[in-house]
Amino acid sequence: MKILIVGASGTIGKEITYELEKDHEIIRAGRNGADVQVDNTSVESIRNMYEKVGMVDAVINASGGANFKPVDELTPELNEKGIESKLKGQINLVLTGMDYVNDGGSFTLTTGVMMDDPIPMGASAAMANGGVKAFVKASAIEMPRGIRINCVSPNIVQESWERIGHLFAGFNPVPAGKVARAFVKSVEGAQTGQNYEVY
Amino acid sequence: MKILIVGASGTIGKEITYELEKDHEIIRAGRNGADVQVDNTSVESIRNMYEKVGMVDAVINASGGANFKPVDELTPELNEKGIESKLKGQINLVLTGMDYVNDGGSFTLTTGVMMDDPIPMGASAAMANGGVKAFVKASAIEMPRGIRINCVSPNIVQESWERIGHLFAGFNPVPAGKVARAFVKSVEGAQTGQNYEVY
Repeated sequence: MKILIVGASGTIGKEITYELEKDHEIIRAGRNGADVQVDNTSVESIRNMYEKVGMVDAVINASGGANFKPVDELTPELNEKGIESKLKGQINLVLTGMDYVNDGGSFTLTTGVMMDDPIPMGASAAMANGGVKAFVKASAIEMPRGIRINCVSPNIVQESWERIGHLFAGFNPVPAGKVARAFVKSVEGAQTGQNYEVY
Repeated sequence: MKILIVGASGTIGKEITYELEKDHEIIRAGRNGADVQVDNTSVESIRNMYEKVGMVDAVINASGGANFKPVDELTPELNEKGIESKLKGQINLVLTGMDYVNDGGSFTLTTGVMMDDPIPMGASAAMANGGVKAFVKASAIEMPRGIRINCVSPNIVQESWERIGHLFAGFNPVPAGKVARAFVKSVEGAQTGQNYEVY
């Protein structure tokens, strides 16, 4: 398969790439240093990426950010990062990319544990995750040409524990490689409309 | 209690108002014809509404729209209505309104059945609903001054069946009055972080 991975250089993106490059042709997309540059907060940038890459069998997204703030300090303006990047950045990869995915291909997006197991300062990220999960479930029933769509909801990963583990009191971090396996399941398997929880 | 109801003139908003006005002081907000005008897609308009209304004990939102389109016709541009109105319109009522809610007060937002039981053309609305549900669950753990936050997820209501029932094949519509009871539970009860499914 020809697989486009957006956010391929991130902590989880690297592991997804490692898992899939053994058997597939991988195109790495990201803000810089990748095969193709893309800014997922810009529909035009996403469109340009797809035009450069052409038809693929699978699109994976492992990118997207949100501001972490206590809810009483979270302004509409600070919430925009989660809206533009983690939510719309992912949805627009699908809405813009549908015509670039071959029959029977797939999209796999990324959600996250804080929508199910809330943490302080996580409301904006949780909002984006919940929006993506519901979009995936709802859009799966009417995707054209046998295209499938799933998302993966990672726990905090071991590789990020030193940097952001203090936000996840009492969580048991999982290896990023374990999260990557869920992306393999989505791409090589046959399920659709799923949110794979790797908790 | 002094209760602000945004979208008070809608099908469900009217029933919520009917249920609550027996025991509480109600301020109706909406696009037109209400006690206070508000356009929930504008943060400035939301801010103006709160300034006019002043302190309240509860904020209820029963407004918010999204485009209904098959997913392969749903463009990033068409998805914006769901983002701006049904998602951000509700989240920004909370982020902007927190300082206008008395200690121990509450917010109650509206989600909807299509995030759990998908219908064709419902992906954009489902996305918004899922985002609101996750935001409610996550923000509830750190709302200040004992403020609670819940949402209500209505099934298709009997009062809308003739107009949009064709989108909900095989669903069993519920009376809007039954949905309104969940808003009463949120306002007068003590729970927080809940998504009350009225299916």
